[in-house]
Amino acid sequence: MKIGVVGVGRMGANMARRLVEVGFAVTALYDREPERATALAAELGTQAMTVLRDVTANANVVLTVVSDDAAMDEVFSDAPGADSLLHGAQGTIFVNCATVSPAVHVRVDERCRARGACAVEACMASSIAQAREGTLYLMCGGDREAFDHVRPMLEKMSAALHFVGGPGKAAEVKALVNMLMNINTAGLAEALGLGDALGIDLTLLRTIFSQTGANSRVLETDGADMQQREHEVYFSAAHAAKDSGIALALARATGLRLPLAEATKAQYDAMVTSGLGELDKSGIAELTFADRRP
Amino acid sequence: MKIGVVGVGRMGANMARRLVEVGFAVTALYDREPERATALAAELGTQAMTVLRDVTANANVVLTVVSDDAAMDEVFSDAPGADSLLHGAQGTIFVNCATVSPAVHVRVDERCRARGACAVEACMASSIAQAREGTLYLMCGGDREAFDHVRPMLEKMSAALHFVGGPGKAAEVKALVNMLMNINTAGLAEALGLGDALGIDLTLLRTIFSQTGANSRVLETDGADMQQREHEVYFSAAHAAKDSGIALALARATGLRLPLAEATKAQYDAMVTSGLGELDKSGIAELTFADRRP
Repeated sequence: MKIGVVGVGRMGANMARRLVEVGFAVTALYDREPERATALAAELGTQAMTVLRDVTANANVVLTVVSDDAAMDEVFSDAPGADSLLHGAQGTIFVNCATVSPAVHVRVDERCRARGACAVEACMASSIAQAREGTLYLMCGGDREAFDHVRPMLEKMSAALHFVGGPGKAAEVKALVNMLMNINTAGLAEALGLGDALGIDLTLLRTIFSQTGANSRVLETDGADMQQREHEVYFSAAHAAKDSGIALALARATGLRLPLAEATKAQYDAMVTSGLGELDKSGIAELTFADRRP
Repeated sequence: MKIGVVGVGRMGANMARRLVEVGFAVTALYDREPERATALAAELGTQAMTVLRDVTANANVVLTVVSDDAAMDEVFSDAPGADSLLHGAQGTIFVNCATVSPAVHVRVDERCRARGACAVEACMASSIAQAREGTLYLMCGGDREAFDHVRPMLEKMSAALHFVGGPGKAAEVKALVNMLMNINTAGLAEALGLGDALGIDLTLLRTIFSQTGANSRVLETDGADMQQREHEVYFSAAHAAKDSGIALALARATGLRLPLAEATKAQYDAMVTSGLGELDKSGIAELTFADRRP
């Protein structure tokens, strides 16, 4: 297995470091900022490519860790004459790790199949440290046979690995995870804001929440931050708005009405409008505490 | 300490049994259905009273475990000539365990103080089995000195015991706990409903939720029930609507707008309107699955 990595920002670079460390052959790196790829290639003793087609030519498994829908469309461009990973891609397995819309995964899958290549989704619910340590949380989808082929590699990258369905399905599951996380976060901000307005000791209130039916993962991760107004960004409010938006678009397409998800999206949109979009998602408490409202 | 118990339905009866078992003197029982008190008195070798004032006369600590605001108002009536626990209550400590509005606790506290008696709130976030085993979750409030006096008794009744503040504060905390639990429940129903509409395996989806930022206590308690449509009542949708309503009234009184709590209340109200109010709170999934809508 010769592995290429496209997009070597902090996530992609750490994934490449991990793969080298556990003995995989990482044979080609690419980034749209070429110096990033060059520096990492020097560190890992491998090659940086300056065009996408050379990644495909020098690897049979290509991980993509790009930033958004537009970047995915670009690296998998099927425009005539465009530089693209699809060039000479017959038999290549693409493992797409970026958080992009389900529809983009479906489109990339179609383009890959038209070239005799395979696409696997590997959506991540974890961050940079986990990438380095090989303890990512991976929700996978796409081509099942290709997934089984690259599974040994994915296992070395992850602490948990689930195959959830065909093209786009992993991105849908990730959107559902984030939609629910965002609802729980918005609800927590309301409960703490009301507790504060009632003069209740919020540290004690968080303890009681944690011991009752009100407990949640976001209580652990965001409760103290909401109380102490520590909103250094880990997962931004703007990102939360985007992910809830993806889920709501899926809901609309299936004819479902989801009032909690809508109310949550409206709160995160209000943060963006108020200039708070680059706070952490915990910053939603800035909207629900009486003495904080923007 | 001579203990009276007013309201010996399933909760109150089990609390009395527990107190007798651990060696407390339970000296007076009362229920508005007299045969309940008589039967329990025979079981426990104590006395059933037919008027409230006799409970006060035969005890110095009185636990009340009545059903609602109106029942609390009645047993603590200050109408001239009414039978009432307040009659001859000088020096009595009342421990009020029923789930009633914060304002009712405040009113009862005032009436008690006017008679030289003390009121302690002991709101419960657990159920009948825990009452019998002495493992209740108790959120206490009211008169701090009186709380300290009855604390040894409360400790024998509970696995966790928190004093949260003055009159009405424990009921406020309980309303906050249930408001947040209801939000998390309504959100979970949306995420599972959308997952189902997208054709995702819900058992796998619940596993993924449990391992990510989407995790919550209600996912553990209600997730499978939502998937399997098992809505046997444990905590009813009508009760959820009531408790979210108490929290929203507090929010309005403090000038806070809580859109998630409002959307949740509207969903539980919709269940009541659709005749689903006596389903368990997990029954909210009947509103969010495409093929279930009433």
